[in-house]
Amino acid sequence: MSDTGITVRKNEDFSEWYTQVVLKSGLADYAPVKGCMIFREHSYAIWEKIQEIFNKKIKETGHRNVYFPLFIPESFLKKEAEHFQGFVPQVAWVTMGGNSPLEEKLAIRPTSETIMYATYAKWIRSWRDLPIKLNQWCSVVRWETKATKLFLRTREFLWQEGHTAHTTKEEADREVMEILNAYKDVIETYLAIPVLVGKKTEMEKFAGALYTTALEAMMPDGKALQMGTSHQLGQHFSKVFDIKFLDKDEKEQYVWQTSWGFTTRVIGAVVMVHGDDKGLVLPPKVAPVQVVIVPIPYKGAETEAIMTKAKEILEKLQKKDIAVVLDDRQEYTPGWKFNQWELKGVPIRIEIGPRDLKQKQVTLARRDTFQKITVKEDETADAVTKLLEEIQTNLFNKAKKLLEESTTTVKSYDEFKKVLEQKGGFIRASWCADSACEEKIKDETGATIRTVPFEKEKPFSKCVHCGKDASEVVYFARSY
Amino acid sequence: MSDTGITVRKNEDFSEWYTQVVLKSGLADYAPVKGCMIFREHSYAIWEKIQEIFNKKIKETGHRNVYFPLFIPESFLKKEAEHFQGFVPQVAWVTMGGNSPLEEKLAIRPTSETIMYATYAKWIRSWRDLPIKLNQWCSVVRWETKATKLFLRTREFLWQEGHTAHTTKEEADREVMEILNAYKDVIETYLAIPVLVGKKTEMEKFAGALYTTALEAMMPDGKALQMGTSHQLGQHFSKVFDIKFLDKDEKEQYVWQTSWGFTTRVIGAVVMVHGDDKGLVLPPKVAPVQVVIVPIPYKGAETEAIMTKAKEILEKLQKKDIAVVLDDRQEYTPGWKFNQWELKGVPIRIEIGPRDLKQKQVTLARRDTFQKITVKEDETADAVTKLLEEIQTNLFNKAKKLLEESTTTVKSYDEFKKVLEQKGGFIRASWCADSACEEKIKDETGATIRTVPFEKEKPFSKCVHCGKDASEVVYFARSY
Repeated sequence: MSDTGITVRKNEDFSEWYTQVVLKSGLADYAPVKGCMIFREHSYAIWEKIQEIFNKKIKETGHRNVYFPLFIPESFLKKEAEHFQGFVPQVAWVTMGGNSPLEEKLAIRPTSETIMYATYAKWIRSWRDLPIKLNQWCSVVRWETKATKLFLRTREFLWQEGHTAHTTKEEADREVMEILNAYKDVIETYLAIPVLVGKKTEMEKFAGALYTTALEAMMPDGKALQMGTSHQLGQHFSKVFDIKFLDKDEKEQYVWQTSWGFTTRVIGAVVMVHGDDKGLVLPPKVAPVQVVIVPIPYKGAETEAIMTKAKEILEKLQKKDIAVVLDDRQEYTPGWKFNQWELKGVPIRIEIGPRDLKQKQVTLARRDTFQKITVKEDETADAVTKLLEEIQTNLFNKAKKLLEESTTTVKSYDEFKKVLEQKGGFIRASWCADSACEEKIKDETGATIRTVPFEKEKPFSKCVHCGKDASEVVYFARSY
Repeated sequence: MSDTGITVRKNEDFSEWYTQVVLKSGLADYAPVKGCMIFREHSYAIWEKIQEIFNKKIKETGHRNVYFPLFIPESFLKKEAEHFQGFVPQVAWVTMGGNSPLEEKLAIRPTSETIMYATYAKWIRSWRDLPIKLNQWCSVVRWETKATKLFLRTREFLWQEGHTAHTTKEEADREVMEILNAYKDVIETYLAIPVLVGKKTEMEKFAGALYTTALEAMMPDGKALQMGTSHQLGQHFSKVFDIKFLDKDEKEQYVWQTSWGFTTRVIGAVVMVHGDDKGLVLPPKVAPVQVVIVPIPYKGAETEAIMTKAKEILEKLQKKDIAVVLDDRQEYTPGWKFNQWELKGVPIRIEIGPRDLKQKQVTLARRDTFQKITVKEDETADAVTKLLEEIQTNLFNKAKKLLEESTTTVKSYDEFKKVLEQKGGFIRASWCADSACEEKIKDETGATIRTVPFEKEKPFSKCVHCGKDASEVVYFARSY
């Protein structure tokens, strides 16, 4: 393999493979600031696609984007004790402005509940001002001390955070589910990654929430990755920040709130789930480049005819709104280009060589299966459209199979530990619903309850840890 | 006037009028952090429109978006002395991560040259890696100590910053102009604000640039507002950050660089230039809501017919991709709604009342002129499309007239000072090109040279300040 290619196999050294794919495909790079990363054009373009998809969904349901300050006064964070304790060890503090020390130190936002809700209290007077359904796309900072992992653990990352306020608990409950379903669609339909959805346990819920719902995906190394969360905040923050409204009967009430977010870590999940030994494999629906055309030059006159053909096909695909690039660089060989575009995960490569020219055909190479097919020149656009759909479906189905095969039902703690060590993945088990039991499992194995399914299943054994009567079936895993 | 309306006239107390329009139209609010603001949904939607327009332009010319870290180590800022001195008094410093003091303090980005170029040095090896044409949309922080002015002077604001690297000076020169022209188009064609374009003087150029080009608009209070800058950085930063490439002859060379940016202050300019005593007036091309339909309910059956009609028109306009809202809220009167949507600057209001219903017509009310016209129901979509164009043109022409009327040619320093005191605006004058003279004018009058036109005009008098021979004609003004 060349030095620009991936030098380890995915199934041999997953962690090193991941880092190489991220760096060599041009998705991201380490920043010259400790713990931080650079979102290069390739990953940022994916993020822009995701933003476009999610923005459309939330705007259609009446949400609006805004931007609140980066700075949060320490006193705001402290107002809600649980919240403060949850975040303060990870806060970056601004203590100087120019050459002067600040009177009160300012946190770089780890999340924006406190600053937004202090403002909601000012904006909301009556039921006429509700609901408020706002979202922002921004970066957040959490001062990680563990080793940096691109997209998954960096001191600064990108996300969206939605913050809504409602007149009733029921309306807020519906909001939580509406967003969770929107996330599920983005992740499954566009990123081609199947997820488990459900509630978090009391121990795992967001600091300050009534309850937390979440989406959990399974990575090929057997670790779960949380893909997004949607929280019912109840009246917890509204009581702390005094967010009251006059209802239709002129009675003062506290609002019911939700908050929800997903981050650029979902790009890390795309790399892990779909990538292979050749590099990145991108789902067509979020691929910044869906098709690359590589002309294979031959001799003088033929080369010219091939280039003309390549340009015709470029235009045909552009007309169909397919994101296509013609790689006509002279300084690189076709073979080098094949490797580069495979590394970058482009779903389809179109080759046009002397033989294709002669037979009025083009060759389509699939990134997901490496299968090559030839299609008639004038059927290229339709064939490409169809193939992009097929690739999208194939990637989802492969990931679905991975998820299913990674899920093991266990009835005893011995079995639990054995599966966790040998295979990892989701462990489906009956549980007594006692946090003490949950905590012991975490301490002893590193596995946590990733999700409690919305539809309660009947326990099929005693509690997997303590042996007492179980009250629910939950999914455990080690996680990123 | 109601307490929600604007209580001062634009031509009586411009500053207070501006603040009221920004706050009451729902564009923005003061944040509960000193010196910071909240970009509410109304202004953020305008910003999203601007992003969409500018992204399309720069992507078509081969630029790509990225995201670099918020944090810049102090040592990076210090590498380029001019740059450091220009920014350091305004830097917010992070000195603590969690509970631990940092080894090296980190600046919150005031601009990203240093961190990006340290990385460019790593990425660039050969001419094959060039040009690099990257842009990022982010917030930047400059620790202002002067009074906050929404959109114009806040400690954090939103912007885009482009950073390119090229093999030759000529290519970088072309890049500077390509971007300047893109800015001009965004500002004139979309924001309907005419600008003067040209170079900055040595004194006014960006810290570390070879030369700076800029766009200057005139506000109704006679002060200029810089709408964007595009800098030729020369090899200044590439020498400091050691950004070298092997050219086609295998010789090592330093890259030529540009950087360019515009900020959310352009939204402030839109408010100032187009707004009136009723509030905001938005150019149709960047208005998040271009048309509002206000049904005027009457009696039972008629009200229902009016609502049906309103919904039909809503759908017709939506089909034409017009951003339209039907305000069918029961809890507000039509009069209240008229005021609210006028305050928010929506270009066209469609009224549908009993009389319109009877005569199969609708009434269109223009926000810019308050003129009302009736059109046949089935011609609504076409009439609206045409009217939106007319409003866009009218706003630009009005602003153009303002710019022209605000520009005064002077030949003596007495005249200069008199015009500046009585009228403000741009002062066109001959100048000796000596920075000492420029500095004295600034000290004595507060006016600076806003722009040196690209096409040199022949001086029409001696230097307006020192009386020596003049070498060029420039535009002075006081500015925001």
